Amino acid sequence: MLKNQTAILRIHCPDQGGIVARVTDFIHQNKGNVVALDQYTNREENRFFMRVEWELDGFMLERDDIGTVFGPLLGKPLEMVWDLKFSDQIPRMGIFVSKSSHCLYDLLARYEAGELKVNIPVIISNHQEMEKVAKRFEIPFYHVAVTKENKKEQEQKELEILKEHKVDFIVLARYMQILSSDFVSNFPNKVINIHHSFLPAFAGAKPYHAAHSRGVKIIGATSHYVTTDLDAGPIIEQDIIRISHHDSVESLVQKGKDIEKIVLSRAVKAHLDRKTLVYNNKTVVFA
Amino acid sequence: MLKNQTAILRIHCPDQGGIVARVTDFIHQNKGNVVALDQYTNREENRFFMRVEWELDGFMLERDDIGTVFGPLLGKPLEMVWDLKFSDQIPRMGIFVSKSSHCLYDLLARYEAGELKVNIPVIISNHQEMEKVAKRFEIPFYHVAVTKENKKEQEQKELEILKEHKVDFIVLARYMQILSSDFVSNFPNKVINIHHSFLPAFAGAKPYHAAHSRGVKIIGATSHYVTTDLDAGPIIEQDIIRISHHDSVESLVQKGKDIEKIVLSRAVKAHLDRKTLVYNNKTVVFA
Amino acid sequence: MLKNQTAILRIHCPDQGGIVARVTDFIHQNKGNVVALDQYTNREENRFFMRVEWELDGFMLERDDIGTVFGPLLGKPLEMVWDLKFSDQIPRMGIFVSKSSHCLYDLLARYEAGELKVNIPVIISNHQEMEKVAKRFEIPFYHVAVTKENKKEQEQKELEILKEHKVDFIVLARYMQILSSDFVSNFPNKVINIHHSFLPAFAGAKPYHAAHSRGVKIIGATSHYVTTDLDAGPIIEQDIIRISHHDSVESLVQKGKDIEKIVLSRAVKAHLDRKTLVYNNKTVVFA
Amino acid sequence: MLKNQTAILRIHCPDQGGIVARVTDFIHQNKGNVVALDQYTNREENRFFMRVEWELDGFMLERDDIGTVFGPLLGKPLEMVWDLKFSDQIPRMGIFVSKSSHCLYDLLARYEAGELKVNIPVIISNHQEMEKVAKRFEIPFYHVAVTKENKKEQEQKELEILKEHKVDFIVLARYMQILSSDFVSNFPNKVINIHHSFLPAFAGAKPYHAAHSRGVKIIGATSHYVTTDLDAGPIIEQDIIRISHHDSVESLVQKGKDIEKIVLSRAVKAHLDRKTLVYNNKTVVFA
Repeated sequence: MLKNQTAILRIHCPDQGGIVARVTDFIHQNKGNVVALDQYTNREENRFFMRVEWELDGFMLERDDIGTVFGPLLGKPLEMVWDLKFSDQIPRMGIFVSKSSHCLYDLLARYEAGELKVNIPVIISNHQEMEKVAKRFEIPFYHVAVTKENKKEQEQKELEILKEHKVDFIVLARYMQILSSDFVSNFPNKVINIHHSFLPAFAGAKPYHAAHSRGVKIIGATSHYVTTDLDAGPIIEQDIIRISHHDSVESLVQKGKDIEKIVLSRAVKAHLDRKTLVYNNKTVVFA
Repeated sequence: MLKNQTAILRIHCPDQGGIVARVTDFIHQNKGNVVALDQYTNREENRFFMRVEWELDGFMLERDDIGTVFGPLLGKPLEMVWDLKFSDQIPRMGIFVSKSSHCLYDLLARYEAGELKVNIPVIISNHQEMEKVAKRFEIPFYHVAVTKENKKEQEQKELEILKEHKVDFIVLARYMQILSSDFVSNFPNKVINIHHSFLPAFAGAKPYHAAHSRGVKIIGATSHYVTTDLDAGPIIEQDIIRISHHDSVESLVQKGKDIEKIVLSRAVKAHLDRKTLVYNNKTVVFA
Repeated sequence: MLKNQTAILRIHCPDQGGIVARVTDFIHQNKGNVVALDQYTNREENRFFMRVEWELDGFMLERDDIGTVFGPLLGKPLEMVWDLKFSDQIPRMGIFVSKSSHCLYDLLARYEAGELKVNIPVIISNHQEMEKVAKRFEIPFYHVAVTKENKKEQEQKELEILKEHKVDFIVLARYMQILSSDFVSNFPNKVINIHHSFLPAFAGAKPYHAAHSRGVKIIGATSHYVTTDLDAGPIIEQDIIRISHHDSVESLVQKGKDIEKIVLSRAVKAHLDRKTLVYNNKTVVFA
Repeated sequence: MLKNQTAILRIHCPDQGGIVARVTDFIHQNKGNVVALDQYTNREENRFFMRVEWELDGFMLERDDIGTVFGPLLGKPLEMVWDLKFSDQIPRMGIFVSKSSHCLYDLLARYEAGELKVNIPVIISNHQEMEKVAKRFEIPFYHVAVTKENKKEQEQKELEILKEHKVDFIVLARYMQILSSDFVSNFPNKVINIHHSFLPAFAGAKPYHAAHSRGVKIIGATSHYVTTDLDAGPIIEQDIIRISHHDSVESLVQKGKDIEKIVLSRAVKAHLDRKTLVYNNKTVVFA
């Protein structure tokens, strides 16, 4: 076991007294040093959420035993939905992209700079323009053109590519195709999209046109987990930028790119740091 | 004529070469000193918008003659929709309010501090709670309770009160009643509302409940001119505040108040400074 | 004991394993239901910070006994600096103000609306302009004019007024006098100021003039606890607003007011909710 | 002459009546179609600023004659400092960078996507890490290591490289060396820097350490023209991001990168669009 590695436990369960005490006591009794803890109780739903991270160095339980002990001891009696990860488990992220490079470059530049604890084994596109970017970063690129007619078989092909590259989760870095419910069901809460509007305003196609037409004074971008309901999945992160009557649709597109890439990268980072937890179509983002 | 008073001319017309030259030349030839000028061309609609303000002191035309000369000389030939005001024409603003005091206090405190060049002759409410606030600022208060049944006659009564107090425009400072089309048609682009969401998201009733339910990470407020189409009038100003999963509906309501009052007051100030111009359901807000 | 009242415990101490477990276990063992918990470890200083709030209803220890038990059991052995409050202990806030009304109105309007859990027994000013505002809200107002020469005796007088009205903490709502070290030492971390700049930029007098002169594109406001070091106390809250070359000093003053009042009110609310904890001239603001 | 090319005229001069009229009349008389006009009068300095852009197609003066006519006709009599550019004059931008890639990638990705109307003939670095990035975009890279001892000769070498590549202006994309006054004097208002703080707060080295130490709740980034006075040149653009006590110096560095790159790119874009005008150490940024 590497030094300084940590275990990350995410929990949600019906609220009741003493959960924090019992969970932290479990860690403390086994000589774990907590380095981060955040918890939250949703009073309307009477539901408790918690993320706790502790150092594995010196912890008395072996990695494989932690869940084995925790489950019967606390997970089951407290009716927890829980999830245990280790900081040296580096997820494998597949990127889907169409023709715009801004989100793709933003992710790849961070990846190369070591900002994102991730592996990127594959980039898939319904166009060919981004192949040169993939090549520069030496990441395998697959061109999978999708039409109404061949969508089903092409998505099957994409699933095979993802499987071959052992992809854990997918980021849609301005991928201008709607994924089928069948496809999405393979990656529950594991497809992160960036939508170029401040959802729920301007869901669907051409949000900058719609924003311009409505005469809003602020535009936004929204990153969310993809569900089978278009642009209606649990929101991870949003941000906005001020605009004015001077802005044309073209300048909205231009300005919007800046928030799209920042919002998407923040959402990906939160996901990679295991700081997100989805419940009832909302995302808890832990501190 | 008082020294340092200014004339404010607002124009929109089909775009064509030389409008700025001709308008500024008209002012210059008559010895006017321009203190502010902002213009904008909407290329999609091929429409030109301009606001120009100049000092009356030393201007060769008398107030009453400016329009008489400008109209035939430039207004008519260039097919302008235009509007001329003078800085010492102080508009009379009627305030409608229900039970919440935050927007009302914000407006009245600015009014008292001399921030808003306005007279406030009357406050109308469908409830009685805000009467004490009106009294403190010594502004006549009318309680006009509105029900489904009596709406028509009560609006008639409100119109009479507004007429009696010579009200030029109306601010809905969290007035929780929908004004009828008939009522609104008396004040075209002269009723300013604050809606407690980032329109067009969460139009209609209970926007904070809807925002909470959707799990957004940012909430907003929107000030707009009221049209007969609910929450769909031309937007004057918007702003937002970041929230998190920790926020309950109650805390959204609380946090939202801060942006509601600031956004409404900014919109009222832009209106009072004659910096707004509505065209095709959008608001140009001049610098 | 009223139903639904809570106990609020704030702690900081040297970091070590198991603090969360031991504190939450203490509450749990005594049948307390935790409604809020936030904690944070400063790794550079190896210091642990925590705020925990639990319902008193059903808690097995009497109010007066909680500290008596907690101190020897955990406070002392873990070398904690700790503090215990109850939600129905409503602090008494004294307001100091000079001539500007915007922060004063913002606080009083929130107070009246029940947003701030506070009593406001007294307003003190070195000018007379705000007396009328105090009268409207029926709060005793004292005019204590301060000059270089009489500062010492006038501050003494102020201290007596504060004592008489049993003031717990002071808010400087744009009070344009520097308090002496002697005065401040009577209220350690209990004087909240609003400075009209984005500290540490433009500390001292006339920050809007300095901002204008420097040509910044954004201005700010900072609320902080007052220490004997001018404008250098621990920061509670800051916010900013975008400006441009169009802005004169006067318009900066005007725009700045909007963030001054919001930032100050947020800081006061955090203080009242017992969410602030000062250590080494920095303020931890709990969620 | 290409269709749709424009002329861009930037002016500042002592304020006096009729400047807008005379300049726009000059364009109008020569059949120029104005596509953008922004002007501003600094009343404190009694100085007038203007940017006007018109289509060359159909304009009656040849490019080379515009200045020849404008100078004696208006420039000289009105004591203007003025500057004329054409939209198809694409400036040549040299990039200086040290080890951090985020600003460099942001600029290069925009450049490749056609967002920036610029040529980038050369990248210079005092380190070798960014050579691989330069190679990917096929831009000549020069490693010019600078020490206290060799600074003078190395800057001479840099000047030669810049001359050889006909560089018009320089962008310091996180270049961690202070340029000498001699060097800077070769590029007056033509060196754009990004400083990783909200200037004037935290000028000089290690601003994130200083921000962390001061306990601010917001950090910023500032792009400015470089003058011989360190971090004190005219500000072009600033932006901020909210932080909390949870942030370590490392996370400030991380979060700061996002605003650094956006702020720098916005400033470069304003410069390329000829929307900036420096006067008295401040930057007018036209709409």
